[in-house]
Amino acid sequence: MSLIVQKFGGSSVRDAVRIKNVARIIAETYLQGHDVMVVLSAQGDTTDDLIAKAEEINVHASKREMDMLLATGEQISVALCAMALEAMGLPCVSLAAWQVGIHSTSVHGDARIKKIDPDRIQAELDSHRIVLVTGFQGTNRRGDVTTLGRGGSDTSAVALAAAFHAELCQIYTDVDGVYTADPRLVPDARKLQEITYDEMLELASQGAQVLHNRSVELAKKFRVNLEVLSSLEHKPGTKVKEVAKVEKTNIAGVAKDTSIARVALIGLQHNPGVAFKVFDVLSRKNINVDVILQSIGRENTKDISFTIHKKDLREAEDALNAQKDTLCFDHLETDEHIGKVSIVGAGLMSNSGVAARMFEALYEAGINIQMINTSEIRVSVLLDEEDVNRAVRAIHAKFFDEM
Amino acid sequence: MSLIVQKFGGSSVRDAVRIKNVARIIAETYLQGHDVMVVLSAQGDTTDDLIAKAEEINVHASKREMDMLLATGEQISVALCAMALEAMGLPCVSLAAWQVGIHSTSVHGDARIKKIDPDRIQAELDSHRIVLVTGFQGTNRRGDVTTLGRGGSDTSAVALAAAFHAELCQIYTDVDGVYTADPRLVPDARKLQEITYDEMLELASQGAQVLHNRSVELAKKFRVNLEVLSSLEHKPGTKVKEVAKVEKTNIAGVAKDTSIARVALIGLQHNPGVAFKVFDVLSRKNINVDVILQSIGRENTKDISFTIHKKDLREAEDALNAQKDTLCFDHLETDEHIGKVSIVGAGLMSNSGVAARMFEALYEAGINIQMINTSEIRVSVLLDEEDVNRAVRAIHAKFFDEM
Repeated sequence: MSLIVQKFGGSSVRDAVRIKNVARIIAETYLQGHDVMVVLSAQGDTTDDLIAKAEEINVHASKREMDMLLATGEQISVALCAMALEAMGLPCVSLAAWQVGIHSTSVHGDARIKKIDPDRIQAELDSHRIVLVTGFQGTNRRGDVTTLGRGGSDTSAVALAAAFHAELCQIYTDVDGVYTADPRLVPDARKLQEITYDEMLELASQGAQVLHNRSVELAKKFRVNLEVLSSLEHKPGTKVKEVAKVEKTNIAGVAKDTSIARVALIGLQHNPGVAFKVFDVLSRKNINVDVILQSIGRENTKDISFTIHKKDLREAEDALNAQKDTLCFDHLETDEHIGKVSIVGAGLMSNSGVAARMFEALYEAGINIQMINTSEIRVSVLLDEEDVNRAVRAIHAKFFDEM
Repeated sequence: MSLIVQKFGGSSVRDAVRIKNVARIIAETYLQGHDVMVVLSAQGDTTDDLIAKAEEINVHASKREMDMLLATGEQISVALCAMALEAMGLPCVSLAAWQVGIHSTSVHGDARIKKIDPDRIQAELDSHRIVLVTGFQGTNRRGDVTTLGRGGSDTSAVALAAAFHAELCQIYTDVDGVYTADPRLVPDARKLQEITYDEMLELASQGAQVLHNRSVELAKKFRVNLEVLSSLEHKPGTKVKEVAKVEKTNIAGVAKDTSIARVALIGLQHNPGVAFKVFDVLSRKNINVDVILQSIGRENTKDISFTIHKKDLREAEDALNAQKDTLCFDHLETDEHIGKVSIVGAGLMSNSGVAARMFEALYEAGINIQMINTSEIRVSVLLDEEDVNRAVRAIHAKFFDEM
């Protein structure tokens, strides 16, 4: 029988009513004759509630104990959902990550899945039970509980789908698919029927909140067919696969990201290796750098601008200023009021007109571009934060209204 | 170093303030130079809240999934308590039963501990860490989570104390020890410094709520020194051991139990094996029978009276009436308005005056005795429910005011 993995996020299981709804979706798939494996997140606000409990006691609690605490959230979800399936008379079993044997690296709070033991799950599937597995967690070589970090349940689902060669991995969320732009911002944004892994990756890293990057990377690596769909509306979602139908527009969507800040080092000595030194300082602090721009300044100095996550800004400033003498720059400037708008599409860079159309849309809207950054399938521009939403609408209209 | 096991119940860890208080008690013991192992129950109402969540979804949920759900309660407690110890700068580690290797029988909701793996805990103790273990739970041979039933955390603590040859197993509760009677009922009840395992067993099974029977049985079997004390007041509790100092009164205390009901089968045929058949019917329904009285009736028939837990009454009636023809009785009478009062003491039956003094106290108070039942170290009487509290006070006064 073909195996389908279904993942439901925290809002999809937030209370008894939602859990019963999830059980109906699972039951329908099971009764169609599929083997079904279900991956669940913690209910609604459970994780936040547990964090609040911890902070009442110790704001500097170790990540090891935090993982031990938070892992209870998904265990509650799988047990409750199993009970809902039992009420429908369906054979099922809930399993925590440690029972399955989901082996992870040791980094508490941000572990990576290394290996999944097939035995227990396979035995349950062979007995025709629906298997419910806790998302977001694993155990390390010490036998301690780890959690996988942001988007961890998506990653659990994809890893299980890969390990058991599932026909399909369905990610149920509170949106019904991947859109050409955020529908809250662009009312006539369209839902994509299909999208490639690479496009999804770029959209995810450019701010589209549907799927977490790591899960898409894993899906791409193991060729797991993904589908993003809504747990509340019964209709097809967006399929993520190796090759997707190319739409006439050449782009899959427009994404925005306003969580970034810009840092500029002004008047750097124009010596070899200076860029390496700058980014080495940041990498040692685990600060991810995105768009980088380097320009020759006056008198044989140069300027380097780059973007980082807003939350890392203070730490980056401190780290760079502490190395001011070694790095030999004149001064440091920062700007938190910027945003990034990107277009993503598989055929984008082989079609030179696409980037030009994007710039044309911004020009027509009177929006100034601060920096430009491109990849094979993406063009990103940095803008004033206040221009971001207008830019998304203008670009979306340019590409999708003229089809 | 000597090992001390400390167990804290749900009310002792019900919120952040109480958890910090528990951490202080643990810290004090650890800083005196002991190895410390801690067993915790779920916080305050957590178990009830989880049961309510389950019942919203499925009132007939399987016990397997119920155990999976409820086991999260203790895991939350141990993680939070570890965080409190971390805040005090103390080395510690929380472990769930599955991490320790607490192997149990397979009966979900009422499992028995079979074996405890020493390796993980020993390694942590060798590293001078305070080890916090989830009470009330184990894993069965399938690797599924089990819970131990009522009083399960006490049993976990005693089993761990036995497995690691602890010097002492301290059971912290919201009372500060074992009293000669319930202090809410008898204001001048006295706290016992020491009590024997057998006395504690009889007191527990006669309605004293301090320690659960199974934990005392286990402590007796493995000669674990127990101490019952309060987590809220810093003073010595009651020690439970093989031999206790004998007090002049010869009795350790007076207990009452009003959770019982009486069943009488009237006009049973006086055939061999009839008593066996009656109690076999009940045993097949897992109904425990306590005081039994058999009397010869008129015309070669007899009557059998016995007490059971009130909650089992309806089921017992149904089961017996269903077998009325096989059991050959005339009719069945029940009485829910009864209670049992017991005196317990190690030297009791070797001192014939003791039972007489108890009956004298009841006679002087004008209280009628319905049935009498005795063991080596206990005398119990069945009374009208409305006489129970008065009987406890009269008997307590007779034994303790005249010392």
